Amino acid sequence: MALVGPGPRLTAPASPAKVPRVDLDALVRPILDLLRRADQRDVRITDLAGPEAHADAFAAIGAPLSLGPGDAPLDLTTLTRAIEAVIARSVRTLHPRFFNQNFAGADPVAVVGDFLGAALNTTMATYEAAPVFTLIEREVLARLAALAGWPAHEGVFVPGGSVSNLYALQLARLRVDPEARERGHDGVPLVAFASTHAHYSFEKSVVLLGLGRRALIKVACDERGRMRPDALAAAIDAALARGQRPFFVGATAGTTVLGGFDPLPALADLAERHRLWLHVDGSFGASALFSSGQAQLMAGVARADSLAWNLHKMLGVTQQCAAFLVRGTGALRAAFATGASYLFQPDKPHAELDSGDATFQCARRVDALKAWLVWKFRGEAGFAARIDHAVGLADHCAARIAGDPRFYLAAPPSWVNVCFWWIPPDLRPFAGRTPEVDATLHALAPRLKAAMLRRGEAMLGFQPVDGGPNCFRLLFINPATTIADVDATLELVDACGREALASGD
Amino acid sequence: MALVGPGPRLTAPASPAKVPRVDLDALVRPILDLLRRADQRDVRITDLAGPEAHADAFAAIGAPLSLGPGDAPLDLTTLTRAIEAVIARSVRTLHPRFFNQNFAGADPVAVVGDFLGAALNTTMATYEAAPVFTLIEREVLARLAALAGWPAHEGVFVPGGSVSNLYALQLARLRVDPEARERGHDGVPLVAFASTHAHYSFEKSVVLLGLGRRALIKVACDERGRMRPDALAAAIDAALARGQRPFFVGATAGTTVLGGFDPLPALADLAERHRLWLHVDGSFGASALFSSGQAQLMAGVARADSLAWNLHKMLGVTQQCAAFLVRGTGALRAAFATGASYLFQPDKPHAELDSGDATFQCARRVDALKAWLVWKFRGEAGFAARIDHAVGLADHCAARIAGDPRFYLAAPPSWVNVCFWWIPPDLRPFAGRTPEVDATLHALAPRLKAAMLRRGEAMLGFQPVDGGPNCFRLLFINPATTIADVDATLELVDACGREALASGD
Repeated sequence: MALVGPGPRLTAPASPAKVPRVDLDALVRPILDLLRRADQRDVRITDLAGPEAHADAFAAIGAPLSLGPGDAPLDLTTLTRAIEAVIARSVRTLHPRFFNQNFAGADPVAVVGDFLGAALNTTMATYEAAPVFTLIEREVLARLAALAGWPAHEGVFVPGGSVSNLYALQLARLRVDPEARERGHDGVPLVAFASTHAHYSFEKSVVLLGLGRRALIKVACDERGRMRPDALAAAIDAALARGQRPFFVGATAGTTVLGGFDPLPALADLAERHRLWLHVDGSFGASALFSSGQAQLMAGVARADSLAWNLHKMLGVTQQCAAFLVRGTGALRAAFATGASYLFQPDKPHAELDSGDATFQCARRVDALKAWLVWKFRGEAGFAARIDHAVGLADHCAARIAGDPRFYLAAPPSWVNVCFWWIPPDLRPFAGRTPEVDATLHALAPRLKAAMLRRGEAMLGFQPVDGGPNCFRLLFINPATTIADVDATLELVDACGREALASGD
Repeated sequence: MALVGPGPRLTAPASPAKVPRVDLDALVRPILDLLRRADQRDVRITDLAGPEAHADAFAAIGAPLSLGPGDAPLDLTTLTRAIEAVIARSVRTLHPRFFNQNFAGADPVAVVGDFLGAALNTTMATYEAAPVFTLIEREVLARLAALAGWPAHEGVFVPGGSVSNLYALQLARLRVDPEARERGHDGVPLVAFASTHAHYSFEKSVVLLGLGRRALIKVACDERGRMRPDALAAAIDAALARGQRPFFVGATAGTTVLGGFDPLPALADLAERHRLWLHVDGSFGASALFSSGQAQLMAGVARADSLAWNLHKMLGVTQQCAAFLVRGTGALRAAFATGASYLFQPDKPHAELDSGDATFQCARRVDALKAWLVWKFRGEAGFAARIDHAVGLADHCAARIAGDPRFYLAAPPSWVNVCFWWIPPDLRPFAGRTPEVDATLHALAPRLKAAMLRRGEAMLGFQPVDGGPNCFRLLFINPATTIADVDATLELVDACGREALASGD
């Protein structure tokens, strides 16, 4: 039997690979400094540089962004400078005036949890390789399921809410067509429903699953971005009349732009009547369940078949920490199990705790760890306070906007989202939208935002809503954000609006 | 216009949420200690505790694993103790005698990179939110593509090699059936080919994609776990004769168990002849391209259509760091783009650099960052040394086993994998397999491994191969592992084998 592999092999016995030692203290110091200065306000949120400027800056410190075969390894000092440059040139999502995304204000305990998970560097696939993490994941999932009011559940952490929505659709498809696992989709016109304000991952999912984009029927919303039950009922009836086969309703709890919560009880009624899988995409909003004041937004979730819940959005757990939960048991393994013999040996101790066959992924990061650490340190009262604080800021902001002719709410505020327009002086008091007004507001948004990015003092997003012009969106998530931050940000928007007008051609 | 959302809202102005401050130094100290003692050998790799024992231990320090609404938040001291307990009770994948998985020996620079990425807590979806990370990801992908010999490419980091294989299949499906994006799979019998030793994610993928498990045809391998081109040719012909439509070949570069590299040039010939998408799952083995001695294992990859390359396996980058690369440009966006208006505003600066429409995920972690930091610090020569060291250890180990009647190679060694049986004394010298011998070896493996886990001095896996009995698998990856570690581990296997025999009933 030949002992050598197909390539040339070393003949001399291998000695330990010579690798430079690392001065960990030097490398982590700038990271700890960043975390300690998390709520510092007199620092730019973003430096607005283009690709060339970033590249030049890294080259100037001896750490060019590019990689090549002849590159000399950096010494530790230069590596530390590179870390400092990464920090200085990245968007400061910890800043109390970062309102740009559906996450903000990372909890330092979560950041440490990511560090801990990386240092222990394992995979969630088996209890053998991840005993403590397997147990922690089960505890976190169990408590989330209890908050949803489910007597029995299964679940898994996944890399983002999009994957949760994908899994939900796959489980639903296999419930109505279990043969699809072996046979594949056979062209039966299965159709799923989600609202016009639902996340775009529903669309991506039906494409990936081989159902096709036309399998997703978008249902109209009310002015808060909530799916209208009457529109869903009509859409189901219309699909049935066309000979299609409805199988899935993707409700949203906390839409991305307007923060709308679909009316789950009414959707659950329809889902039951038509035997549809009811999935709740609570990636953004399910954390309302921690707040006694906000939990009613989630009323009806106990009747859902599955739930997406991202702890990395409202709760300050770092990217990514996304739970996918299924009511009842068995569907996940029925969908995903392959029983790979190299990994899931039934003759191992505690093999029944292996999670690998309950998910699509093989190796998985230990995302539940950081959530567990934050949860233990803040407690559920801490989570509730974080939610209530954020909602309170949104209320304050909406009230300010409603009483100020320089702004106008683009939609009724909901959850932690406030969408509004800055009204140019010659349109005050705002007399309503016309095609000309829409064109003005739409074109102003990117210029106003550009002015804001130049200043670097706050960051918020804009997008069109329901066919209307671009509006700005403030998302309140960071517990370090204050009333004064909200007020200052509105003044900043006004200043940037005037600047954008003045610079307009 | 109503200003309040549907739930009860706070009426008092929100004050900053009261959150306890964190003593970061206290929290990170045990993590830094772990990293500093990475190559310590006199520590257990795993403590073998069952779920109850772990739960009791955490409860005893005041940090029970369970989560409940009435739990008091932990103070900082207890939280620190919980972190210490997580470390003490987790598998020590940094240990030089951890041979259990296709990753080991995390580079501390990568661990720091994960910490840095978590502290900056953003998403890769847009240049606006991740300017430096977007550029870094592009540089890493570009250099990987150059190593593969591709003049043009696109790519994205994904959460694991399974997702790379999924994406490859989806791109391939859409190349032969672009209408599937809108229409869905129509039942045309598309079939994909991968070897019997290919990763199980190919099977999971065809199920998820709605092609069905029967769409995956498994092709026979040689004794090293390499796909046989003659078997592939025959399988393609047979599929065509059955009226099926071949569209995809999933080659493997570095199989999970045997470390086999499929013969890419021969597979590329067949793929070209039949116009099949050639994907190379180099999750484990593509890093051979860094070593001048091993790169020829990857010969032919320049002709592949796509490539999975996990930097978290051979290179010590932490979980997860998985690149998915496509030769040429345009296929990723054609497969995944939806152009969500809230995220990908074309009127933003540098929107052409946004990666979000080139992948299924919405938010993505900044996985390329840690790879870039390690790459900069170690250099490509450092990566090559790491690979060569690992291959050298495998060579040494295989030679030791071949010359020792207590062991027998279960397959010719390949790459960094050494698969072998421990031969009980009454079967020495090993006279070959019979059904009785197979039964003995198969039953011994879990008992031997259990004995090894009780000692906690080394950790390696076992699995059946090609219908044979369970064999042990050593995977050499960690640069801190020495020849002495290899020799000691083989002696340990022998001792545990005798122990398992003695305790057998």
